[in-house]
Amino acid sequence: MKSAFCFLSKRSAIVAFAVLLAAVPAQAQDPLPSWNDGSSKRAILDFVRTTTDQSSPKYVPPEQRIATFDQDGTTWVEHPMYSQVVFALDRVVALAPQHPEWKTTGPFKSVLADDKAAMAKFTTKDLETIVFATHTGMTVEAFQNTVKDWIAKAKNPRWDRPYTDLVYQPMLEAMRYLRANGYKTYIVTGGGQDFVRAYAEQVYGIPPEQVIGSALESQYTYNQEGQGVLLRPPKLLLNNNFSGKPEDIYLFTGRHPKAAFGNSTGDQQMLEYTQAGGGPPLMMLVLHDDAQREYAYGPASGLPATEVGTFTQALYDEAKSKGWIVISMKNDWKRVFGFEK
Amino acid sequence: MKSAFCFLSKRSAIVAFAVLLAAVPAQAQDPLPSWNDGSSKRAILDFVRTTTDQSSPKYVPPEQRIATFDQDGTTWVEHPMYSQVVFALDRVVALAPQHPEWKTTGPFKSVLADDKAAMAKFTTKDLETIVFATHTGMTVEAFQNTVKDWIAKAKNPRWDRPYTDLVYQPMLEAMRYLRANGYKTYIVTGGGQDFVRAYAEQVYGIPPEQVIGSALESQYTYNQEGQGVLLRPPKLLLNNNFSGKPEDIYLFTGRHPKAAFGNSTGDQQMLEYTQAGGGPPLMMLVLHDDAQREYAYGPASGLPATEVGTFTQALYDEAKSKGWIVISMKNDWKRVFGFEK
Repeated sequence: MKSAFCFLSKRSAIVAFAVLLAAVPAQAQDPLPSWNDGSSKRAILDFVRTTTDQSSPKYVPPEQRIATFDQDGTTWVEHPMYSQVVFALDRVVALAPQHPEWKTTGPFKSVLADDKAAMAKFTTKDLETIVFATHTGMTVEAFQNTVKDWIAKAKNPRWDRPYTDLVYQPMLEAMRYLRANGYKTYIVTGGGQDFVRAYAEQVYGIPPEQVIGSALESQYTYNQEGQGVLLRPPKLLLNNNFSGKPEDIYLFTGRHPKAAFGNSTGDQQMLEYTQAGGGPPLMMLVLHDDAQREYAYGPASGLPATEVGTFTQALYDEAKSKGWIVISMKNDWKRVFGFEK
Repeated sequence: MKSAFCFLSKRSAIVAFAVLLAAVPAQAQDPLPSWNDGSSKRAILDFVRTTTDQSSPKYVPPEQRIATFDQDGTTWVEHPMYSQVVFALDRVVALAPQHPEWKTTGPFKSVLADDKAAMAKFTTKDLETIVFATHTGMTVEAFQNTVKDWIAKAKNPRWDRPYTDLVYQPMLEAMRYLRANGYKTYIVTGGGQDFVRAYAEQVYGIPPEQVIGSALESQYTYNQEGQGVLLRPPKLLLNNNFSGKPEDIYLFTGRHPKAAFGNSTGDQQMLEYTQAGGGPPLMMLVLHDDAQREYAYGPASGLPATEVGTFTQALYDEAKSKGWIVISMKNDWKRVFGFEK
């Protein structure tokens, strides 16, 4: 039988060729343009290639493709203060007129007096007091709206830019590349789950059901119209840090991640658990060694790690002994932020 | 310009026509063949049509398409005993050689003596004792494997079939139809999250990350090889019943469901919360009024509801007053189980 396609006009043939070209750009383009060539970039490319190639012994079926990302210090700037702490302090100022007693009490008076020396000495208990006072006692929707308003307006003083501009472009590229290859990307943060969910879709392309974080209990009750609503009482349900990370990943997904990205001791157990899941897992830690473009702290910098959630020498040693890959911000990243040319 | 397609041969035209036909089978076939025509079937069809039609004022964007299903009594048989309770009792027998003291203690001796009268009087505390004794103290993987072994072998005595054969065919069709139209289907069960996750993919086509259930804490520790593992201590983290259902749906997804299916007072708050989310939500309750093909209990049957997790008269009245749809198993379902001809 004569093929119908031998009668294609020249113009149709050109169109068909263009369609074919459009279908293969992924192989032609570099999926990680903000990464310098080196072992970190190569590890991500190799991981994706071997786990998505059906003929590879390390092939991972699509339903098991889960990649988890810590947030603070891993996908955006955490130094010198977590953005959520800045939010909480801003909320103290905003809510102060409704709490005249704050002028003379507890950690609030230091915040209201902008007493930076006193704030630098805040204990975990002080911060907890501030977080509970500013994050609880409203519906879940009211809280989300407050976060959305804040994140749209607040600016990081060093860069004079919104906090959401301070995500690391190389990590956004890694997330997109993983998703383009069938991986479900999760944020797994010690920060507040509802805080991060308020902007995760817009900033990371990650929907709320793929954000796992520290979480308050919620309390189902009825509003004046008799409708069911969820309130935020001051009770912590999930402390999603350290051992809490693998515990909550299991709670939410029932699976081991195949790739995990962190930057601190709070991520150590998540990376260990990823490695324990077997297969050809990828474990990576971001080292902040770039004082010029961002910050330098932790083992390679000679500067002290702060107490919680940072990159200690012990973690660095564990990474080296277990084959985890340490990403040098200075050497591995061509650019740090999307706004850099 | 002359179109290339005017040169298509007759046979090519027939092939092209066949390809076109193959592309539209969904509209030609009944997506809910096990449902009788009636208001319940119509409600599901209408809901899907109006929420997926971009020109409809009730259109729901794909990322918000979430449908939640209670399990026991909604997607499979719950009477006269939850399958998970049968599992727990079977585990008492299997583990008895390692616990000689059970022959003379607590609720265990009634189970081991097969004392049905005593078992019928078990309190919630008795059942909790049995569940903790049989569901905790091992790794999460060891527990899952135990459930998988049991579910592959155990049989429901009335039908002499595996418990997984006793899922309701009409509900499987509703799940598939919703998924085919972009809905993410979740099981939201008062039963154990890990118990249901062990078979949910195979039985419902629902992956573990879309199973929300009552959950124990897990505890991260290290095995003898130094690998990170999760243990199951006897501590309840989530009681996913009544108010727990909307609370945990929010915890896991950060969203309101657009459709919710239940059958008992344990589902009431989930349906209320779905309705409160607005849009054109669909709330449905399965009424067990078919003693011949399954069971009859609850308000329409004249038989008493048992204490927890059943369809009370008050729930029936709430459903009627709020426009929730009550599915009559007897009248709305052409067949109940997949194995029926």
